[in-house]
Formats: sequence, structure tokens, C-alpha cells
Amino acid sequence: MQRALGVCYYPEHWPEQQWADDARRMVEAGLTYVRIAEFAWARMEPKPGVYQWDWLDRAIETLAGAGLKVILGTPTTTPPRWMLDKWPDMLPVGRDGHVRKFGSRRHYCYSHRGYRDECATITLKMAERYGRDGRVHGWQLDNEYGNHTTTVSYSAAAREGFCQWLADKYRTIDALNEAWGNVFWSMEYDGFEQVDLPNRTVAEANPSHWLDFLRYSSDQVAEFNRVQSAVLRAHSDAPLIHNFMSKSTDFDHYKVAADLDIASWDSYPLGYLEKHSALGEAWIERYAQQGDPDFQAFHHDLYRAVGRGRWWIMEQQPGPVNWAVYNPAPLPGMPRLWAWEAFAHGAEAVCFFRWRQAPFAQEQMHAGLLRPDSADAPAMAEVQKVAAEMAALPEAGTARARVALVFDYQSVWAWQIQPQGKGFEYFNLVFDFYRAMRRLGLSIDIIAPDCPDLSQYDLVAMPGLMHVSDALQQALRAFGGTVIAGPRTGSKTEDFQIPAGLPPEMPGRICTVAHVESLRPGVSRPLSGGGAMRHWFEALETQAAVIDRLASGEPAIVAEDKVIYLAGWPDDEALQRVLETACAGEGIPTLRLSGGLRVRDSQTHRFVFNYGPDPALFEGQTIAVADVIWQDLPDTPTKEAN
Amino acid sequence: MQRALGVCYYPEHWPEQQWADDARRMVEAGLTYVRIAEFAWARMEPKPGVYQWDWLDRAIETLAGAGLKVILGTPTTTPPRWMLDKWPDMLPVGRDGHVRKFGSRRHYCYSHRGYRDECATITLKMAERYGRDGRVHGWQLDNEYGNHTTTVSYSAAAREGFCQWLADKYRTIDALNEAWGNVFWSMEYDGFEQVDLPNRTVAEANPSHWLDFLRYSSDQVAEFNRVQSAVLRAHSDAPLIHNFMSKSTDFDHYKVAADLDIASWDSYPLGYLEKHSALGEAWIERYAQQGDPDFQAFHHDLYRAVGRGRWWIMEQQPGPVNWAVYNPAPLPGMPRLWAWEAFAHGAEAVCFFRWRQAPFAQEQMHAGLLRPDSADAPAMAEVQKVAAEMAALPEAGTARARVALVFDYQSVWAWQIQPQGKGFEYFNLVFDFYRAMRRLGLSIDIIAPDCPDLSQYDLVAMPGLMHVSDALQQALRAFGGTVIAGPRTGSKTEDFQIPAGLPPEMPGRICTVAHVESLRPGVSRPLSGGGAMRHWFEALETQAAVIDRLASGEPAIVAEDKVIYLAGWPDDEALQRVLETACAGEGIPTLRLSGGLRVRDSQTHRFVFNYGPDPALFEGQTIAVADVIWQDLPDTPTKEAN
Amino acid sequence: MQRALGVCYYPEHWPEQQWADDARRMVEAGLTYVRIAEFAWARMEPKPGVYQWDWLDRAIETLAGAGLKVILGTPTTTPPRWMLDKWPDMLPVGRDGHVRKFGSRRHYCYSHRGYRDECATITLKMAERYGRDGRVHGWQLDNEYGNHTTTVSYSAAAREGFCQWLADKYRTIDALNEAWGNVFWSMEYDGFEQVDLPNRTVAEANPSHWLDFLRYSSDQVAEFNRVQSAVLRAHSDAPLIHNFMSKSTDFDHYKVAADLDIASWDSYPLGYLEKHSALGEAWIERYAQQGDPDFQAFHHDLYRAVGRGRWWIMEQQPGPVNWAVYNPAPLPGMPRLWAWEAFAHGAEAVCFFRWRQAPFAQEQMHAGLLRPDSADAPAMAEVQKVAAEMAALPEAGTARARVALVFDYQSVWAWQIQPQGKGFEYFNLVFDFYRAMRRLGLSIDIIAPDCPDLSQYDLVAMPGLMHVSDALQQALRAFGGTVIAGPRTGSKTEDFQIPAGLPPEMPGRICTVAHVESLRPGVSRPLSGGGAMRHWFEALETQAAVIDRLASGEPAIVAEDKVIYLAGWPDDEALQRVLETACAGEGIPTLRLSGGLRVRDSQTHRFVFNYGPDPALFEGQTIAVADVIWQDLPDTPTKEAN
Ligand SMILES: [Zn+2]
Ligand SMILES: [Zn+2]
Ligand SMILES: [Zn+2]
Repeated sequence: MQRALGVCYYPEHWPEQQWADDARRMVEAGLTYVRIAEFAWARMEPKPGVYQWDWLDRAIETLAGAGLKVILGTPTTTPPRWMLDKWPDMLPVGRDGHVRKFGSRRHYCYSHRGYRDECATITLKMAERYGRDGRVHGWQLDNEYGNHTTTVSYSAAAREGFCQWLADKYRTIDALNEAWGNVFWSMEYDGFEQVDLPNRTVAEANPSHWLDFLRYSSDQVAEFNRVQSAVLRAHSDAPLIHNFMSKSTDFDHYKVAADLDIASWDSYPLGYLEKHSALGEAWIERYAQQGDPDFQAFHHDLYRAVGRGRWWIMEQQPGPVNWAVYNPAPLPGMPRLWAWEAFAHGAEAVCFFRWRQAPFAQEQMHAGLLRPDSADAPAMAEVQKVAAEMAALPEAGTARARVALVFDYQSVWAWQIQPQGKGFEYFNLVFDFYRAMRRLGLSIDIIAPDCPDLSQYDLVAMPGLMHVSDALQQALRAFGGTVIAGPRTGSKTEDFQIPAGLPPEMPGRICTVAHVESLRPGVSRPLSGGGAMRHWFEALETQAAVIDRLASGEPAIVAEDKVIYLAGWPDDEALQRVLETACAGEGIPTLRLSGGLRVRDSQTHRFVFNYGPDPALFEGQTIAVADVIWQDLPDTPTKEAN
Repeated sequence: MQRALGVCYYPEHWPEQQWADDARRMVEAGLTYVRIAEFAWARMEPKPGVYQWDWLDRAIETLAGAGLKVILGTPTTTPPRWMLDKWPDMLPVGRDGHVRKFGSRRHYCYSHRGYRDECATITLKMAERYGRDGRVHGWQLDNEYGNHTTTVSYSAAAREGFCQWLADKYRTIDALNEAWGNVFWSMEYDGFEQVDLPNRTVAEANPSHWLDFLRYSSDQVAEFNRVQSAVLRAHSDAPLIHNFMSKSTDFDHYKVAADLDIASWDSYPLGYLEKHSALGEAWIERYAQQGDPDFQAFHHDLYRAVGRGRWWIMEQQPGPVNWAVYNPAPLPGMPRLWAWEAFAHGAEAVCFFRWRQAPFAQEQMHAGLLRPDSADAPAMAEVQKVAAEMAALPEAGTARARVALVFDYQSVWAWQIQPQGKGFEYFNLVFDFYRAMRRLGLSIDIIAPDCPDLSQYDLVAMPGLMHVSDALQQALRAFGGTVIAGPRTGSKTEDFQIPAGLPPEMPGRICTVAHVESLRPGVSRPLSGGGAMRHWFEALETQAAVIDRLASGEPAIVAEDKVIYLAGWPDDEALQRVLETACAGEGIPTLRLSGGLRVRDSQTHRFVFNYGPDPALFEGQTIAVADVIWQDLPDTPTKEAN
Repeated sequence: MQRALGVCYYPEHWPEQQWADDARRMVEAGLTYVRIAEFAWARMEPKPGVYQWDWLDRAIETLAGAGLKVILGTPTTTPPRWMLDKWPDMLPVGRDGHVRKFGSRRHYCYSHRGYRDECATITLKMAERYGRDGRVHGWQLDNEYGNHTTTVSYSAAAREGFCQWLADKYRTIDALNEAWGNVFWSMEYDGFEQVDLPNRTVAEANPSHWLDFLRYSSDQVAEFNRVQSAVLRAHSDAPLIHNFMSKSTDFDHYKVAADLDIASWDSYPLGYLEKHSALGEAWIERYAQQGDPDFQAFHHDLYRAVGRGRWWIMEQQPGPVNWAVYNPAPLPGMPRLWAWEAFAHGAEAVCFFRWRQAPFAQEQMHAGLLRPDSADAPAMAEVQKVAAEMAALPEAGTARARVALVFDYQSVWAWQIQPQGKGFEYFNLVFDFYRAMRRLGLSIDIIAPDCPDLSQYDLVAMPGLMHVSDALQQALRAFGGTVIAGPRTGSKTEDFQIPAGLPPEMPGRICTVAHVESLRPGVSRPLSGGGAMRHWFEALETQAAVIDRLASGEPAIVAEDKVIYLAGWPDDEALQRVLETACAGEGIPTLRLSGGLRVRDSQTHRFVFNYGPDPALFEGQTIAVADVIWQDLPDTPTKEAN
């Protein structure tokens, strides 16, 4: 595997005479890739049907001429202002029913057919011009699907599309009424055209109604993407890429990436710590200048799954950004650490965003590798150091994982619709499992909920998985390792109903969930073995062995035939115990990593990262703050070897 | 009085072959009543004007055949989807001005005349068919008026109705301008049609404008209800019932119930603890699985007043619900305790919601007496136990109360409109008085603000009563017992103006409120006698005896001729002292109940309830967690006996 | 200078027979001015074009006849209801896109041309009738511009006006695209008419777009005011006044006041403590009945600048108000203290709001000098005391200040648009500097950001000043005293771009800001010298002397040639040190005032105020709670004397 560095560049932002010098400095910094064009529609097609390619031709010429590989972005995130005169109804509509206006980016509704045609056309024009151009080494389709809460739009186009989608799915309105249980409150429909979007209902809408609408919305992203991928496939052999985001769960990324060659994601460790961490104020303060020690790794593993093995960092934070609630600077060393962590997880490329900080418009306070005055920003030296280190290290992919963790977008939506208790967030549940595994030093694969083959793993966890797909059921039946399930695993049918036999509906079912409780933060259910269940507890009926009980006696963790079922959301202490025991049972070696130390193996090396605010000791070796070290691995343990 | 148990059942949710078995199990569980049909409009009238009664005929046949008494609900909470094609403008409109859509329930505006006609028609059809049917033992009109914040709608129909209502009330626009003080900001109107609804004004609207609009909105609920009661009265002698809610204050329940025979309410102790408790996090954690120890009792007493003596629990929580922020399970024993507490307060029936948990739609996570798989849920055994206990206990109504507490819906609206300090919530003020009385072991009557006769009481409290009605003034003049008033009692005219002679405008006025202060949570006014005034303090001018002063000297509690006036919102300590002293003065015996112990007398027994998380001692007897015991009462003390 | 007291009066609220007695009591209380008419449009012009002046004639006759000087308010804050029939689109529109309705006040959009014409007409009618009336001693134009968030309206009229304003400013659309950097996300416009208002965009709108829209909105207030001032200038020689508000920053008050003779403001110390204090719960509790000890003084100094030396208190809080979250009563003595503090800062008049508490409408809970029953309210005695004290004290303006602090409205908007970290609020930054100066006992001038002459000062601070204007640059170059700048000073061009040479763009630039960090509340950057930078830190490149460093070594406070640059937002400890040192360097004497003690010199006296909840010692003299004392000043130090 060929590791590489890159950068995002906007030639249209700078005087043309600066381009050559920029290109030269990029190459000198050790960069290989340069992504351009993603927001430049107004420069490519300044008036409807009038195209201007000369500037882009020259930009490619200059960059490629300096030795860089060009990634070309389609500009469909930023339709020009004239587009609205053609398609006044193309704007997205918020859940409050208000149109979301022009004046920034992503001002389109995925359901709008007219806009899809426009996207097909501009993509075709680009593909015809550059599709066979050897200097173009990849395509980025659109930019950050779903950013700014745009996946779900409540527009007229969305309603029309949704009604048709329902008709295609259910065929008869009676089937829909049955699947949704519309008899419940006389909600029965006489025809598909009567179905409205589920926002702004008097009381909450039917959860099945919501789930279908969120599925529909997710499908529109996939269809929108497919419009462009189809055009590009016909005109180019360069790989198709999209730059996904972190904790981005409004659409099914596996489905969108089915039409791509490489999954990439945009990694902003500090901004996302501020924005997404559920671990509290003290945690955020501790990691304010380093980022959460597990959040990047989680997404590395996730997008390796989404990209079916091939993945990039398309945008890597180099310094303070502009968009989080608070925007501190990374500790010196962190950009290097982040880059190496990506490579350890198998990234093919790490591209920094952006080359030079823009002095104007929305992101003028977003750092780049260069300052607005073209001097080097602090990250530049780190990029150069990584480039030098890469040259000295053998290329190798990430190590094979013996542990797998299911991540399912549909379960995100299901528990958003029906948390049943504030704070039951599927992402956080899975991430708690991930973090506990990481603290044990494990290398982890994230897998899709329709994963048809688990044979390469020894341990599979699927907490909170709303519904166990037919594919996964089959894989589980063939699986010889340990399975960890619950809470809420297999608790719904595909139609969002409680299964006739009660949850968990899954192979190797070892208990029945009689009823559930959600718990407020100050209330938890302590376990006899230490730790507690929090957020959630399920009353189980079971014949299986009770591994742990509540202090009050009820079964809390039960096990039989290598299936372990958790009757609640375990806290860190309980989760560590469960996972450590399960790993021991499968002969998977574990560590106990304290503080901000984390480990990831490539096929040849063990990388050790120190995210903590103090130097830390790993196997006798002191690792400085914000430092990463690597050690030779004698031999990767293989499953067959066990 | 004949105590009974019942259950809510939705035959349309289940295969018809299951009905007979369900009916049999209901009877075996000791249930008497079964409420059906309330949400089934789409099954009764699947197309406009096309009625289908056969299924309902068979359901009644099956249930009554098994020995159950049927309560028939009119389905007007859930108009079918086709209704919107007839009346597109019937939907309620939120305060934000947005239409609230179809897709759940309560999607109608009370002001809409077309929809009222539709309701009259479906009610007539039901009444004609079942009005003289001896198996139908009662009617429930609509369901939970005002739920989902639907009492107040900002629709065009509401505006039109409001203008007419104002014209009827004021006759001339000058009278309205005068009553509202519209000269204040040049707000004077030239005609009633100019008056808009008071939402979305640039600054806050005139409080008199708001109060009239809330009165209008309340009146629409009463009128809406009257449409159905008039139809049913003409065709049936069975009692008319509505199932009210807890802390439901957007309309005047006394007025609505004037057209009913029985007031019932839907009691969800755990859900409402989460939703309504003003007593803080620690309190909610303590009672998370039991419910607030006074909240149910308060509503029992309130709805006994609303129902003029006759009241039911129409829906009793049996297990975890789905709609609170957190949804824990009741402690074993609580459903039984709740039922007995209702009977002790004089309930004629306690019906559980619902028979079998539905596996689909909005309430699929709401427990029933049966699980979705038809196995008994935990509450079933408690129901059976209550049924057995009832059979062994003599029937008796609730004990006569010597203490009365005024509860006035208009005062809720007044202080919502003009809290004058965040946290001045009339419900909480009255509930603080109620809780203090309960902790003294008192049996309490809640009375309406136009109560014309107080002669059966020895003590009457009317804190926060915005305006003392003519009827109550007359009753107070004739009253020989102790009156407790203030803060804010008699502080407004009916037009929402400050009375010409300043507050409190009431008989036996013993002081003048020169000005008032509202206090932030961290600020209070300590009392010389212990405790403090919080939220609110009034500067009094008075010739009366000063019972307690602020530490800084100002009069805080004054008394004369058995009238006690409180110049603020007393904390628990101060309130206990005031009430205990007043009871002693009237020879009313009091207890001091600690923790979660509560007491209520029926005519024959004293019931003792333990809401606390630990066993508790009452007069030497240990009462287990979630337990209720009862003792023979030798003789109820009567007023004449004192 | 002639100090005077006054009061706000609404004759139209009271029976005419009461007027003469009211006037007599006003004079007896020592009042000079009476403001009337501001909300009485519906009484002046009850129908379109039909005017009624008789009542106002008689009111003026009665008041002036008793010896009072009349201030006449134009009633344009409260257009009558019939106005909406003429101009249905004159209502303001909120950021959410919803129209803000009639029913209170300020129901107009500043951009609406039709309404401006109506205002010109009613002003003309008043000016023609009373412009040369010797009993009218001043005019108040409108009332509290911008109150209820009305400066910025998102109406069609605003959009139309904005497009024209942009066309006037930029001439060509290319110039706008360049200035805003619209190339950034293909946001380029083809014509001015394409530019929409920046609300409700999908992601955040361009900061330059926002800044121009806020500038436009501010300009509309100035234009609106100018319509009336032009009419009045032509018909009257009496001074023109507007009553501004506290922490009112949505429009540029300097610009509006350019067309006025006197700036006045409405001072509600308790209400604004609740509403605006950024200093936390404990601070608010401590000063709940006194008001913030620096907030009034800040606005006194601000409006002295806005009024170019001439300023009044037009509305002074006399007791509890109705509109804050909590509304306690002032400690006895505070109304007197507030009045004297205003006079010490150079106020010409202090008018109390209002004469008699109205028993009706929105402000019925707002205290006056009289209660609703016409008895004296507590503040009346204080007014009389102040009147007596004034008679005994020589008239004198406020002392000359040696210290100046820049306050710039545009910087408020800039950092609202781009806080870059929650909590970076320009007002609070400047107010932190002001408070630190006050605690040092300094007399301070607030100056406008285009102040052309600094020669009278020894020390000038300009923290957070977005852009240093050409005028101020010139003044700074000529200045011989000490300059304190940073953080964020000179960090943007006028177009809201980062300056080409990086910040700070200012004369005597001594460092370069390489990048910035915003910090969450729990994170700060401790200084070697004590204290810390919070909210914000800037990485500096500098050749200047490093006065203080972070504990980690980075330069934090640098100085050269009497320019001091702060690389962050200093906490109180750091700020005191910086200012004390700077004052010492300029020979400006300082005090160290503890607790709630504050000092302000007039030309002849030193006034000492005790805002604290306890008596306090000043130079050996005990000052009671809520008391003010004054001492003869031997001689004011002058700059020349140094
Ligand atoms: Zn809206
Ligand atoms: Zn399935
Ligand atoms: Zn300039």
C-alpha cells in the first residue's frame, strides 16, 4: 500500500501568478495529491450553459506540471445563484417548514429532480473534458453530503418523492397501513398521495412513518450520488471518492459508498471534540488541544468498512478551525500524530485542509498549512516531518482485526425516533463499546449490519442493533466466536414493530425482554460484579447462565453458547469486565491502556499514540505529549494460528 | 358507593378471534368496566357518510357477553384523514403561526364550526345505535381535551370566533378599549374585527388581551364538549364522562364538567413526576419508581370537585410508559397503592390503560396489563390483588374534609400571562399548600373559585387567587372559620387591572399591598419565626396583628378576625407553621408525616401509604415500601361535634 | 451647568380633572421637566387625517401653568391600528421570517417608506402647532429606538432597501463580490437585486454579507430619525432628544445622535442587572437591589460621548419594574444614589419614569413616583431629598477625564457575526476594561472609534476594535500618551477580511498575530505575572518587549513606544495590573476601590457611592449602604499640569 500526503487547494481564490509558487511549495513539503474545483461552479459555468474551463485547464497544468496528482471535485455543493432562477423550488426546507435560503452552501434538496439534472450536466461537462486526463487521479463527488443538516428536507419535492417511494415499497395502501399500525389512532390512509411528511404533527408522528421517511431521505443521497457516479464511470477510470464526515449518521454511508471506489472523511479532531463529545466538560477540557483519543480511530475503522478497505483522509485539521463552539489550537505534534494514526489504520492518503488560510468569507478564521500572508503555519513543519518519516518506513496496510463491532445507520434513526429515554443515542452506545475495546489495545474492524461473513473474527459485538438482517442472521449462525448483544438488539421488526416473540429477535436467542426501563442520569442499576447499568435496563426472562446481576437480584448479563446478552447500557467499568472476559475466552490478547495512551497495529508495526496532556509510559518507554512512536511487530497473530 | 376496576381496550387493534379470550381474562382479573371505541373513527366511518358498525356490535356483544360493562368513547380526538379533504382549515395552528399537521391525534381546532358539526354527526350516529343499549354503561366524550397543547389554537377560525366572542362580551369597542386600557400604547381599536390574536406581537401583548383570549379558548372546549353532551343526553341515560389529565390547566375544567355526570382523569404517576415536578432533581430521583406522593391525591381531590362528587380514574398507569423524558418501571406494589389511594379519595372506578401493550405505532413502548405476546405483565397480579381486597372491604366514600383549598383555572392563566417573576406558577403555589396540608395528615377538599357555600369547612385557603368572585365573596362573608389568603390574592379586577383600592380586594381585607417584589432563586426574605418567603414578597400597609416579620422588620404574615394574609410565597417550613397554627386554632387534628408516608381517610377507614424508597413507621406499625395499609376509623369527626 | 429633575407623564391615562393636582405635586416635589405625548398617536390622530389637539393643548397648559417645562414626544413608536389598513406591509419581520404583529408597540419596520412618510406628517403637525411654543423645552423623537429587537427587520421593505444600499455603496456587483469574497463558495451575484437578506441560509451566511446588512439596518434608524429631526429643525429651536437604552448596540448611536442635540438614556439598574450582567449568579444576587456598580456609569460616559457632551437620564427607575426576569425593589436610597451618580457624570437632567403607576395594560406592575391609588411611592421622598441637595450644591459639569476608552458599535456586530468562540462579546470586553478602570477610581471618557483628537488624554484603550478608522489612525499617530490595544484590535479590514499584513492593523504596530485561539470557560492561559487570559489567546510574533508571558512561555503582553498589546482577554487580576502600571507610567493617580465602592469627580467635588450590601470605609469615612457622599475637590488635575 502506497501511503501519501495531500492538500486541498482553491486556485480560484488566489491570483493566477501565485499558483506556480504554491505548487512548488506543495511538492517541497512532500505532498502528492491536490484536490481542487469542489466549490467553483460559478467559475466553471458563470451563466447557465456558458462554460469557462480555461482557468481550470491552467490550474491543472500548473499543479500537475509541478509533479502533483490532481483530485477533481464536482462543484454540486455550491450551485450558483442563477440556478435559483431556473429552479426556485430546489432549496431545502427545514423541519420547521421554512425554506433555507441561498447565501452559503448546500442550498439544494436531494429530492429535486431538476437540480439532479443540472448536476448530471455539470458532471458530464467535467467528465468529458477531464475524464481521460492522466493528470486527474481521482474524482470527489460533491462535498460532505448531509452537512448542515441537509439530508432530510421537508420540501414539496421531498413529499412527492416520498409518496412515490412508499408506493414502490408497499404497492397497496393497505400494506402500508398494516406495516405502520395506522389503525392505532385512526391514521389509516386511503391512498399514498395522502401521506404527508412527519414533521409538525400535533403529537408525535408514527415511528414507522418517521423511519420510512428517514430511509427515503437516505436513499435520496445515494441516488443523488449515483447520478454523478454513473456519468463519471462512463468517462473516467480514475477512482470515485466522496469526503464523508464524522458522526454523520443521517444517511446510510454503506449504500452511498457502494457507488464509489474510495471512502474518505474529513477529520477535525478539535472541532468534533467540542461538537460531539458526550463525555462531559472535564473530558473536553483534558483533550481540548488533542482531540478525543478514540474518535478519529473509530472513524478510520468505520470508513475502512464503508470504503470496503480503501479509504483516505480528505481533509485533515492543521490548526484552529472557525466553526466549533470554541476553537483552540492543536498542541504541537498533533497534526503529525493524527496523520500517523490514520496511516496505522490503513489510510492511503492524508490530505490537509487547506493550503492557505483564506482572508475572506465564511472560513477566514480556519487555519491552513500557510497563513493568509503565505508564511508557513505551524502545521507545515509537521507535514514535512511526516513526509520524511514515511519515506523511512515500509509501506504496510493495517493489521487484521480479530474483533468486530457492528455499526448500523438505521439503528441510529430508530433510536432517534424512539429513544424511550433521553440520552439513548445509538452512536454513543457503539462508541462506548469501541472506546472500551481501544483501551484494551485491540485492533477493531467496524462492520456493516448486513455483513454476510464473520469467519475472520473471534468476537463480534452488536449492541443496540435495532433489527438483525437476514444476512447477518445467516452469518451469525455460521459463526464460531463470541457474540455480544444487547441492549435493544433485535428489538424491532423491519417495520418498526415489536417482534411477535418479543426481543431479542436474533439467532442464538438466550433470553426474552419482558419490559424495559429508561433511567435518568442520577439513577442507575448497580451490578453485583461492580459498575452499573445506566440509561437503560431490561427485565429479562431467561434460562441462560446469569453472569452478573443487579444488586437487587435481577439478571443483568446472561450468557449461553458463546452468546452474551447485556440487559442494559454498561458503564465503563462493567464494559471493560465483559470485554476482557470475552477476549480471554477467545484467546485475544489485551492491554490495559491508561489515560490518553492508545495503540494500533499495522501489518508490520505497533503504533503507540499519546493523546494525554502529560508524558506517558508504555512498556517502559516514555512517550512525550502529542507524540507517536512505532515498534516492529515480530509477526501478526492470525486466526488460523489460534 | 360501589368501587370497581376497569380497563381500556381497543378491539380494532387485535384479531377478532382474540376478543373472547381477552374478555374472559378481564373478568377473571376482577375487572368490571371496559372502555372501547375512542380512537376508532376510521373504522366506524371509513369513508365520509359510510358507516360500519358490525365490528363494534360484535365487540360489545363479546365483552358484555362475558360480563363486562362497556364505556363507549366518541372518536372525535382522531378524525380520519378524509376529514381534511372536507375541511382543510380545521387543523390547529401553533403559537408560532404554523399549522399542526395530520399524522397523530388531536388534529383539530376547537373553534372550527365545520368540525364541530362532524362531531355532532358521528356522536349522533353512535347515540342512535347504542344510546339505549343496556350494555353501554357510560360514554366518554372525546379523549384528553387539551392534550398536546391543543386548547389554544391560533387559527383563522379561532380569530373569527374570538372577535365574535369579544363583541358578545363587550357590546361596544369602547368598552373593550376601556377594559383593556388600550389607551396605554395607542392600542385602541375602532371595531372588533380589528382585534387579532395576541401571539407574535412585537412586544408582549396587553395582559387583558391575553386573558380574554385564554378565556375564549377555554370556552371553546366547553362548547365543543357541549355539542356532544347535548346529542348524547337526547339519546341516552348513561352517564357522560370525560377523561381529564393531570396539571392540565389550559381550560376551565369546572365549566366543561358542568355538562358531564362524572369527571375522570388519567393518572400516570411516574410520567407526570418526570414531566411536572417542580421539586428538583433529588426529589424526582427519590420518587422515580413511585411517583410524587401528593400529586395523585391532589388530582383526586380536584376531580372530585370538578365532578361534583363523582369521579373515576379512567386510565391508570400499569408499568413503564413511553412518553416521559425517562420511563422507569413502577416499584412492585405501586399500581395497587395507586388504586387504593384513588378509592380512599372516593373514586368510583379505577381503569387501567391498557389491556394489552400494542406492538405497533406511537405507544408501542407503553406497558399494559398484558405484554404484546399476551403474557401477564407485572401489573396484572396487582390488579387481581386489589380486586380481592375490594371484595373484603366495606364500600365507603371518602371522609368529609374540614379543610378547603381553592383552585382556580383563571388564576393559572393570569400568572402565566403576568408571572412578574420567573417561577411564579399558580399551580405550584397551590400545590405547595396542598403538600403542606397532606404532610399534616389532613383530608382536603379542593373547591372552585365560585364556591357559594363554605359552611362545611373550618379552614379555607386561597393563595394566589387573582380575583375573588362575587359568589366567593358572599361565601366568605358568611364563613365562620379561618381564611388564609395571599400572596397575590385579590390582586386584579376581572378585567386584569389593579383594583382601585390596591390588593387584596377581598372581604375581611386586613392590609394593603403597596408594592411587590419577585425574587430570584438565590434570593429569599428570611422570616423571624424561621423559614423564608421566596419567589415573591409584598410590602404591606396594615393595622392588623403582625404574626411574623422579615428579619429586616417588614410585616410578612398578618392576621385579624380569623383572616391570615401571607405577604409572600412561604417555603415549606413557614407554610407548615402557618397551617399547623391555623388548624390548632380551629381544633383540626394534625399529624407530622415524614418522608413518603401519606394518609387519607375514607368514611370508615384510615389508609396509610408509603411512597418512600424505604420501609416507614406509622404509629408503631412498619409499612413496607410501596405498601398501603388501612385501619378502622372509630368515627369520623364532624364539624358539629367540635 | 443647570442640573434638573423631571418625570414622564401620560395625561391621556388619567381623568382630566386630575391633571392640575398632578402638576402641583410635581412642582412641589422639585421637578422641572415633564415628558408627555410619546405614546398618544391614537389620541392625536384618532382617524387617518383627523387630528385632535385640544386635550394636548389643555395638558400643556395645565403642566406649564404649574411651572413645569414640557418635553414633547413624537408618538411614532405606537402607530394606531388604522395605520395597518393603509400599510399592511409596514410590520417588522423577525429573523425567523414571521411577521411581528400589532398589539403592543414598535410595530413598524424602519425600512418602510410609507411609514416614514406617516411619521413625517404627524411630526409636522406637532411641529407646526407646538414648534414655537415657549412652554415646550425639548422634543423627544420616537421612543427607545431598537427596543424589542426591532432594529433589524427581515421584511420585503428591508430587502429592497438593502439591495439599493448595496448598489449605492459598491456601484458594481463585481466590487461587492470582491469585497465579500464571494468566490469562496460560488456565492457570486450577477446583480444587486439577487442579494437576499442573510437570515435562514443553509449554513452561516458570509460575514461580510451580515456586516453590511447590520450596517444597512443601523443606517435605517439614523434615516428614520433624520426624517423627524429635519421636520422639527424647520419649525422649532427647542433641543432634539432621543431616549436611548442600555446595552443597546444594534445601531450606531453616534450616527443617530448626529442629528440630535442631547442624548438621553433610560436607566433601569435592577432590570438591566438581571437582563445583561455577564458576571454570574453570585454577582447578580449581591447587587439585586442596587444594580451593577459600573453599568450606569458606563452608560453615563457613553451617552455623554454620543451626545457630544450633552446628556440626560430620560427615564430613571424609581422602584420595581415589570419586565425583568425577576423584579425586586431597590434598597432605600438607591434612587437618590442613581440620580447623584448621573449628575456627577455630567447629566443635565434626571427624569423619573413614571409619575403614577398605571393600573392597566402591559406595565401595570411598573412602579412610579405615585402608586396607582395616588399615594406617594417610596421613591418620592428620595426625589424630594435630591431636589433639596441639588439646591445646596454648586452646579458643575463632570471632571475632565485623562483616560479614554473606545466604544465602537461596528465591533459589536463584527464579533456577534464572528465570535470565533462562544462568549466573545465586544460589549463585555470593553465593559471589563471599564470596570477595571472604575475600580482604580478613574474618571473615564468613552470615545467614538472615529475620534479625531486624543490630545486631551494620557491613556487610550481600544480593546477588540475590529478596524482602526482612518480618523483614529491619524489621531493615534499624533498621540503622545499610552495606547492599550488587543485582543482582536485591527484584525479586520472594513470589508471584514483579514488584513493583508495580518492583525493588528494599527499605527505603532508592535507585533503580528500569527493565529488565534478561543477557549472554553474551563480552559484559560495562566500568566507568569499572575492572572490569566481567558476566552481568547493570540499567538504573537514580535520584536517588542515581552511584559508578561504565558506560564508556557509564549508572549502574552508586549509593549514598545508606549503601545501595549494584549494577546488575549485578561481576567480582572491581569487587567488591573496592566492598567495600574500604565497609569503609573503616565502619572495618573489611582485608587484601589473594594467591594461596591465607586468614585466619580465632578469639576468641583468627588462623589463616593456605596453599591455594596454593607457599609464601607472610604478614606476613613464610613459610607452607609446605598449612600452617596461628596467631598470638595481642591483642584482638578489638568493634563498641562503633569
Ligand atoms: Zn416559523
Ligand atoms: Zn428482517
Ligand atoms: Zn479603513
